[in-house]
Amino acid sequence: MALTPYEQLEQEFRRLHAFRGALSLLRWDAAVMMPRGSADVRGEQLAALETEHHALLTTPKVARLLERAEAGASQLDDWPLANLREMRRQRDHAIATPPSLIARLAKATARAEVYWVEARKTNDFKLFAPHLEEVVKLVRDKAALLGQARGLAPYDALVDAFTPGISTADIDTIFKALSRRLPSLINQAIEVQASRPPLPLSGKFSVARQRQLAVDILKALGFPFDRGRLDESEHPFTEGVPGDIRVTTRFDATDPFSGLLGAVHETGHAMYDLGLPMPWRDQPVGRDRGLALEESQSLLFEMNLCRSRAFVKYLKPLMEKYLQVSGEEWSEENLYRHLTRVRRSLIRMDADELTYPVHIMLRYDLERKILEGALRVSELPEAWNENLEQRLNTRPTNDVEGCLQDIHWAVGHFGYFPSYALGAVIAGQLYEALRVERASLDAEIAAGQFGGVMDWLRDNVHGVGARLPVQELVKQSTGKPLTAASYLRYLEAKYLEAP
Amino acid sequence: MALTPYEQLEQEFRRLHAFRGALSLLRWDAAVMMPRGSADVRGEQLAALETEHHALLTTPKVARLLERAEAGASQLDDWPLANLREMRRQRDHAIATPPSLIARLAKATARAEVYWVEARKTNDFKLFAPHLEEVVKLVRDKAALLGQARGLAPYDALVDAFTPGISTADIDTIFKALSRRLPSLINQAIEVQASRPPLPLSGKFSVARQRQLAVDILKALGFPFDRGRLDESEHPFTEGVPGDIRVTTRFDATDPFSGLLGAVHETGHAMYDLGLPMPWRDQPVGRDRGLALEESQSLLFEMNLCRSRAFVKYLKPLMEKYLQVSGEEWSEENLYRHLTRVRRSLIRMDADELTYPVHIMLRYDLERKILEGALRVSELPEAWNENLEQRLNTRPTNDVEGCLQDIHWAVGHFGYFPSYALGAVIAGQLYEALRVERASLDAEIAAGQFGGVMDWLRDNVHGVGARLPVQELVKQSTGKPLTAASYLRYLEAKYLEAP
Repeated sequence: MALTPYEQLEQEFRRLHAFRGALSLLRWDAAVMMPRGSADVRGEQLAALETEHHALLTTPKVARLLERAEAGASQLDDWPLANLREMRRQRDHAIATPPSLIARLAKATARAEVYWVEARKTNDFKLFAPHLEEVVKLVRDKAALLGQARGLAPYDALVDAFTPGISTADIDTIFKALSRRLPSLINQAIEVQASRPPLPLSGKFSVARQRQLAVDILKALGFPFDRGRLDESEHPFTEGVPGDIRVTTRFDATDPFSGLLGAVHETGHAMYDLGLPMPWRDQPVGRDRGLALEESQSLLFEMNLCRSRAFVKYLKPLMEKYLQVSGEEWSEENLYRHLTRVRRSLIRMDADELTYPVHIMLRYDLERKILEGALRVSELPEAWNENLEQRLNTRPTNDVEGCLQDIHWAVGHFGYFPSYALGAVIAGQLYEALRVERASLDAEIAAGQFGGVMDWLRDNVHGVGARLPVQELVKQSTGKPLTAASYLRYLEAKYLEAP
Repeated sequence: MALTPYEQLEQEFRRLHAFRGALSLLRWDAAVMMPRGSADVRGEQLAALETEHHALLTTPKVARLLERAEAGASQLDDWPLANLREMRRQRDHAIATPPSLIARLAKATARAEVYWVEARKTNDFKLFAPHLEEVVKLVRDKAALLGQARGLAPYDALVDAFTPGISTADIDTIFKALSRRLPSLINQAIEVQASRPPLPLSGKFSVARQRQLAVDILKALGFPFDRGRLDESEHPFTEGVPGDIRVTTRFDATDPFSGLLGAVHETGHAMYDLGLPMPWRDQPVGRDRGLALEESQSLLFEMNLCRSRAFVKYLKPLMEKYLQVSGEEWSEENLYRHLTRVRRSLIRMDADELTYPVHIMLRYDLERKILEGALRVSELPEAWNENLEQRLNTRPTNDVEGCLQDIHWAVGHFGYFPSYALGAVIAGQLYEALRVERASLDAEIAAGQFGGVMDWLRDNVHGVGARLPVQELVKQSTGKPLTAASYLRYLEAKYLEAP
């Protein structure tokens, strides 16, 4: 029997899925296993596979099949219909970003990254500025083309590429609510914590033992070591596909938390990917619902579940066992104080849960202005410092601690930052719903039993794949529209708790 | 300026090279890093990339470009001309093996492999036989198609696919010479060795220390750890491309040699790949000249260079250092006796240098007869045992030690075996020439200095790439046509040396 146009599309996208899996492995290997001197060879392999992936997605054959399948869409059930919509989305995106523009962006960002590294070494933003300007120009072109194709304003089109369905209007509403409450909340939290500073945790903690501890906890979270790996890399990340998922972290012999929490954070991503709807795993509708939701899962794991009093109950005996530590400074109370410490850091990557969104909102402000032309690249350092001082009452004394700290803009990632803060907001809302659903949540966490949480997440988030827009997914899983209120309630309860 | 058809072809094949590199990494990862449960996902990725590689190679565009480039071939220099010839070869091979046949072979061999494993468990050839028959049928089809395309007899076409330019007539001549001398040479060697058996090497040798020893020796051989890796896997192998080459071995805590020599063997492959002509690395003419020459390099390293009295001088102090061993049984003489011990093994994989070609010639006999229809699959066990008894004066008592021992036929590799013995013959001839060129060879090896050897190999073998047919390459590098004489002289000198 001949395949329908829709069924033929499924075949085409199955192949694209295999390509993406291969690309993911090539990237994982480059960061974890590849010999130092092999970057040029790997670059050629990645470029060849990416080019071919783009070519396969933009063939006239796929266009014809899409039109024919859409003409017969009334015959399709929910899932195939949503799948067809996601196929169309992927193809429109690919068509809107022609290979010539992608190639120019690849070149410009490769150069900009080199000068970004150089500028950081010498604390000289001027070295980086002209290359960033070139990137900005090309990103503007890309945003305009994507916007045209998707019927969106340019910046909205960039955001939509990372987190489908989210608009600047949504972001503005949420960020306004955060901006109204966070500064005073940060002040209050710092004041409360000043009266009870944690005892310092000194010593060296062997990486091998930290790894054993992390593996034990990842197993409790449900990470399947027979279909996944935990390795070490410069920065933590998750790569792979459901069925072969690989997380990394970086252990620090002087810090017993960072390696573990990096692994837990990435396991949030991994469990999302693993929970995607099985029968649709190799189809567009079986993919995650974008960056903000991805980040909501990693943050839910790291912040809501694990930087909690309940988790510390579970963690303390494991730390004693694996790290062979004991004493007053390893009490539950003291561990918890370390895990929830609030500081006015200049650096986003070092920021705690409470100040993190502030760093994001600053970047959101500035990247919009730069793309709109309201802020010149040359004005960025001053604008950055000004903005941070207003928001967080602290000011960088050099650009390495200021606008040179992130790689994102150098590599052309505009519209990416908001998803970090949106992820935290979504995590807060999911967590609130989860607490209502599971009255015994704290007891489960304290016992290292995460099966119930995972079931809930699979039913309400992971298993939905890309079938619903993110707002609809949040509404169905929490019973409320996406709002900052739950998240702020969660932060207030956590950081202003009675001593 | 517009590219010439030939230059456009170079672009197309550059892309194919990147695909092959990606495929190689996917295979390496599957054998070394991949979690147990991820084989299905990896299988889909490999299939998708292989299908696409085949599709890219067989597009009408490539056909047109080849025709136009060939029409203008008189304008091309040596290297581009040879490159064009290799492009044509690759394409003819791809066209001659249609995707439908490849798919059927893939299915049949996957099934045959399962039943081969099963048959070995229960020592029941009959379980495997019908599936091997199916594979044989499809391999016959493939051989016929390949033969038509290349103007060769069917079995010759299979051999040619593995080692271009070698015919059954060449193999018959060489194997006849080996068959004439080897049986008596084996008898003599065993008799000589019986009078001076090696002292046993007992003890446990930590894998970590064996690894350090291997790394030290690989570095001396020139293996570039900044563009390559040494890992462990079930069976030793080499994967990768020049610029990112990865060898594996398997360490055995009770055997201080097998892991090391496995790594050295694979390093022979790796150094060949690394020495391929730099400017042509991503083109067909920049590839190795087929399996026999590949095997000549691994055997030259393992057998000629390292299972030698000179190498033992270098090895002994390193073994003492890394394995912390000492005593009479670790004397140079005793180590050498272990490295050159001759035994009438039933198993090819356990065979020593001297008896190994016998195992190959048996397989060559039988696989030709099976493909020609002169031997039925059901008759294979008896024919195998008979043949081995005649050749080596020992007879398997069951099929696991007989015709079920190798995976090659189950996975459809007919025409592959001869290259193992041809590799040894070529290695012998290269080694003889090398000794003439470098009077100080033994002293260099004893000092762990392999730079001179590598230079000679790069100039005479590695750097030639696929520019010459293998016979021509051997003739140019040794001054003589390919013959078994040098190899037999080498074996006689080594195994019949005066005590």
